[in-house]
Amino acid sequence: MFRVLALRLRGRLTLGMRVSGRHFRSIWLDESSGVLRIIDQTRLPHAFELRTLPDLPAVVEAIRTMRVRGAPLIGAAAAHGLALALAVDPSDASLAQARRELQATRPTAVNLRWAIDRVSRVVAHLDPGLRGARAQREAEDICDEDVAVCQKIGEHGLRIIRELSSRRGGEPVRILTHCNAGWLATVDWGTALAPIYKAHADGLPVHVWVDETRPRNQGASLTAFELREAGVPHTVIVDNAGGHLMQRGLVDAVLVGSDRTTATGDVCNKIGTYLKALAATDNGVPFYVALPISTIDWEIEDGLRQIPIEERSADEVAEVEGLRCDGRLERVRILTSSTDVANPAFDVTPARHVTAFITERGCFSPGRSEMERFRPGERPD
Amino acid sequence: MFRVLALRLRGRLTLGMRVSGRHFRSIWLDESSGVLRIIDQTRLPHAFELRTLPDLPAVVEAIRTMRVRGAPLIGAAAAHGLALALAVDPSDASLAQARRELQATRPTAVNLRWAIDRVSRVVAHLDPGLRGARAQREAEDICDEDVAVCQKIGEHGLRIIRELSSRRGGEPVRILTHCNAGWLATVDWGTALAPIYKAHADGLPVHVWVDETRPRNQGASLTAFELREAGVPHTVIVDNAGGHLMQRGLVDAVLVGSDRTTATGDVCNKIGTYLKALAATDNGVPFYVALPISTIDWEIEDGLRQIPIEERSADEVAEVEGLRCDGRLERVRILTSSTDVANPAFDVTPARHVTAFITERGCFSPGRSEMERFRPGERPD
Repeated sequence: MFRVLALRLRGRLTLGMRVSGRHFRSIWLDESSGVLRIIDQTRLPHAFELRTLPDLPAVVEAIRTMRVRGAPLIGAAAAHGLALALAVDPSDASLAQARRELQATRPTAVNLRWAIDRVSRVVAHLDPGLRGARAQREAEDICDEDVAVCQKIGEHGLRIIRELSSRRGGEPVRILTHCNAGWLATVDWGTALAPIYKAHADGLPVHVWVDETRPRNQGASLTAFELREAGVPHTVIVDNAGGHLMQRGLVDAVLVGSDRTTATGDVCNKIGTYLKALAATDNGVPFYVALPISTIDWEIEDGLRQIPIEERSADEVAEVEGLRCDGRLERVRILTSSTDVANPAFDVTPARHVTAFITERGCFSPGRSEMERFRPGERPD
Repeated sequence: MFRVLALRLRGRLTLGMRVSGRHFRSIWLDESSGVLRIIDQTRLPHAFELRTLPDLPAVVEAIRTMRVRGAPLIGAAAAHGLALALAVDPSDASLAQARRELQATRPTAVNLRWAIDRVSRVVAHLDPGLRGARAQREAEDICDEDVAVCQKIGEHGLRIIRELSSRRGGEPVRILTHCNAGWLATVDWGTALAPIYKAHADGLPVHVWVDETRPRNQGASLTAFELREAGVPHTVIVDNAGGHLMQRGLVDAVLVGSDRTTATGDVCNKIGTYLKALAATDNGVPFYVALPISTIDWEIEDGLRQIPIEERSADEVAEVEGLRCDGRLERVRILTSSTDVANPAFDVTPARHVTAFITERGCFSPGRSEMERFRPGERPD
């Protein structure tokens, strides 16, 4: 019987994340119809709704309105968007136009540009008649590689959690995370949550403090949803609470993702990450950033000056969606309509606050010389 | 004409805060009926509703559910609550019971204990038949003194804003505040907002960054309401955004209130204050705490170990109230019902992050020796 359980567990690991027991990726081509499908993340956690993205405008809309979000998933979606555009019109003009439209959706995540460039490169010199299919294959490769990358991030991060676990004498390792860097932010597994899923599957007790992550509440809605489906113990807190928990010795590590990281290790991530990094430093709590190497922008060094910070709609702050007591979804306004609002979507955590990066190629400290060893084309060991 | 305007402005100053042009305190005895009335702060900013508190249970309920909140106002309300209890039953047993019930409402704010002790002291040795009226007079004195104290805090803080203004060459002084330490948190004027109101009335341009202050959104609902009524320019941000704004040089000072401050200067205030203090220190932004001297707990030195932190209901995190598009108030649930939640209401900012305290007796730095000079009974100058 233990053998069956072990096999089951291993099967789960290989299969990736599940919702109500069924395996899902966050983006996929439907097996029978071949159409592109996503989980509409704006409906979670109250409704689990799938959505078909039939063409480029649908992909652009889905990225802009954050039906799909998370740096790696944005990249994967954009790659598929290019493929859909080229399937309709494979001309150079069509390619250029699709690139522009996709690039304009979200300015901060570097994976968007990375994925668009990668697909463009493989189709640029092809006969137009071949471009659509080739782009789709490349988009699928990007998705498959993302899954493999996140699994590796999970394995490298697992070693860190195992070390924390032994220091805790087997008591649950208490990890604070911000926003959602789970499988919903990638294609499967996640970045920051992958080590947690690996640890949980490995039998290491973990407990996750989930920052709700205003204004869009991706922690409360997406991370809590993921952890519940995976059976990982967790507690949701307001974004204000993390510093207090660290002061009281209730956090063993902070573990977050990144939307863009500079070649020196400045980390751009969801607004509020910087405040948690400050609290981690102030309380001697290690601060880890889990990310695919493709999230590192090797062209820039100064995150504060060189990363454009997306300013999003005031409505994200002024309005909140939730369930009424009769079970219907309702959007309510918490601010009076005349109230002025600012809504920067990201902030930059200076490299000095980062204990280590966890990537598919291994873990390393911030700083150009250390990071360069892990750059694609370099041999890290 | 300018003279008329100046007189009008001065009139406003003397009168205190207004709603739709009419002067209000946050708690008062109705002139004709003599009943205790409050503004129900749980209904703001969408509805401005007054409420009568006829007896002790109503006062206890109003404090516990935060219809009245803010350390100074809690103290004032508790004093009136004692008076109401003694009006019904002036016995020692009744006094003791009322003290217990009031003290149990909110464990963190020291003003609650201070006000209860003060009223108890003046009635303890009186003939029971005299206690009710004497307690009510003491409660009214506490309210009147709070107004005078807050005005003085405003005047002392104004000097700091004037200094910042001259450094800004007349450009608006950009002040970040957390939670609500305005007139709604006191009886009139406020603590942290009093200097801002004084500056605004004095013609010094100010702009306030208003932290929404999850989970109860007192920034978004109360501070924004106050500032709008007073005509002070302001922008609401999520609690996550303050660090980013400081990194970008968009904040000239942080100015907050306190629920309890130790004799050494550790500041207990609304959860999340500590994170803003860290960001202020990291970015060289001055961090000011405005408070009546009665908020200082001279009995304790170590805020982290000695101040009890109230843990409030999970519903405050899980549910949000706002206006539906049809204009009706609705409470919606943002978390699934099974989600575990932690909700600490306050945190402690270590004294080392505080630039200065602004009190009715003047401004001073943290540290026991400096602070002792401003202790009641001492002569600060």
